[in-house]
Amino acid sequence: MAGVPFLPFSILLGILGILCVGLTVYWSQHWLGGFAWDGSSQMFNWHPVLMVTGMLVLYGAAALVYRVPLSWEGPKLPWKLLHAALTLAVFILVVLGLVAVFEFHNKQEIANMYSLHSWLGLSAVLFFSCQWIMGFASFLLPWAPIWLRAFYKPIHVFFGTAILPLVVAACISGINEKLFFRLKSPATPYSKLPAEAWFANILGMLILVFGLLILWSLATPAWKRPEVNSQDTREPLLQEDK
Amino acid sequence: MAGVPFLPFSILLGILGILCVGLTVYWSQHWLGGFAWDGSSQMFNWHPVLMVTGMLVLYGAAALVYRVPLSWEGPKLPWKLLHAALTLAVFILVVLGLVAVFEFHNKQEIANMYSLHSWLGLSAVLFFSCQWIMGFASFLLPWAPIWLRAFYKPIHVFFGTAILPLVVAACISGINEKLFFRLKSPATPYSKLPAEAWFANILGMLILVFGLLILWSLATPAWKRPEVNSQDTREPLLQEDK
Repeated sequence: MAGVPFLPFSILLGILGILCVGLTVYWSQHWLGGFAWDGSSQMFNWHPVLMVTGMLVLYGAAALVYRVPLSWEGPKLPWKLLHAALTLAVFILVVLGLVAVFEFHNKQEIANMYSLHSWLGLSAVLFFSCQWIMGFASFLLPWAPIWLRAFYKPIHVFFGTAILPLVVAACISGINEKLFFRLKSPATPYSKLPAEAWFANILGMLILVFGLLILWSLATPAWKRPEVNSQDTREPLLQEDK
Repeated sequence: MAGVPFLPFSILLGILGILCVGLTVYWSQHWLGGFAWDGSSQMFNWHPVLMVTGMLVLYGAAALVYRVPLSWEGPKLPWKLLHAALTLAVFILVVLGLVAVFEFHNKQEIANMYSLHSWLGLSAVLFFSCQWIMGFASFLLPWAPIWLRAFYKPIHVFFGTAILPLVVAACISGINEKLFFRLKSPATPYSKLPAEAWFANILGMLILVFGLLILWSLATPAWKRPEVNSQDTREPLLQEDK
């Protein structure tokens, strides 16, 4: 697959990402009872939508900002601000997504944070939050020392990539457990693969393919920003504005 | 983390892999009722052990064979045979692991292949089987044309890596669903996090860390076999023996 240009590939990724979000919304709307913000199971339904939109699709887009060839020339600052803005949007969606599930659990007196899904999901959110704060402090604050940015950059890149498989595993286990919770009636158990089970299983497979393609895009050497032009190791970021 | 030498890191990976297998065996032995080969739930218990041992740990070891610096010098054939032998061992364990779960389901009249976990797991096994057959036909058969090996090599490497997150997602969703199946009694539900839930959740997190570290090892540029010395594009492999 070497030789594929980044931009057409990113359009494919965009379509796939929209599909993941669209199918999650459709699942919630058509089968899970739609949306509300009142501690009911309709409030829970925001959880998968906000997490897939934020922690998977927008996060993937934010990770690929520096793979856009346009970002390789000229000042890096606008691209860093775009990366920071996208990940801030992720953060807001993720906080709302957590509120949706905790409020639902608390109102319905369901325990929090016991399943492997919840452990993985919260680990992803915690790592991501550290990444945002550390990234802001190192790469955007004008007084951040150069040694700190040079030291933290490979760590930021490593954890930024490592969070993605965590997110995919959390999505997959979340869909799997939701289907076991829901499809229990003797008439249409999960094991008889009713339409909803087919639909959500396919959604899970698409989420996995999306995650894999983002990981592959991040690992493709030809799509990486050449380090030669990087201002990272020369000057603090916001000095460009001064 | 750049600058870490491969060999000490691979020892850490080995310890982590043994820990994943050991904890899976302990879970099966201590909580799930031990092992048998008779269509009972003790037969099922072979499934997680064989899959974690084969499809995760041995598979990870096989993927890292060409990262051993010793393999970069001298004839490549012994390393290819080692890679083929390890993946053949994976294949045997995986077939036994599938037999364990299908036999259990069939004897207990439980449906097969409905959950997202089973879809992911079977996808991983099918991709892996294609990889083994295509790898054997392209890289080990002496009459394989050079163009085929040159064409297939990046595809083999790509899918070889992509199968790993599939396996990790299958392990995580499998552990998650097994805990929901098992921990249902009002006294010790999963939601009250009894000792078994703690144990298996931690096992799931360790499996994820192991998978991430293997992926990271595969992606680290300094650990990749230099292409210059490769005989792949010069001569069919088994000609060395003639």
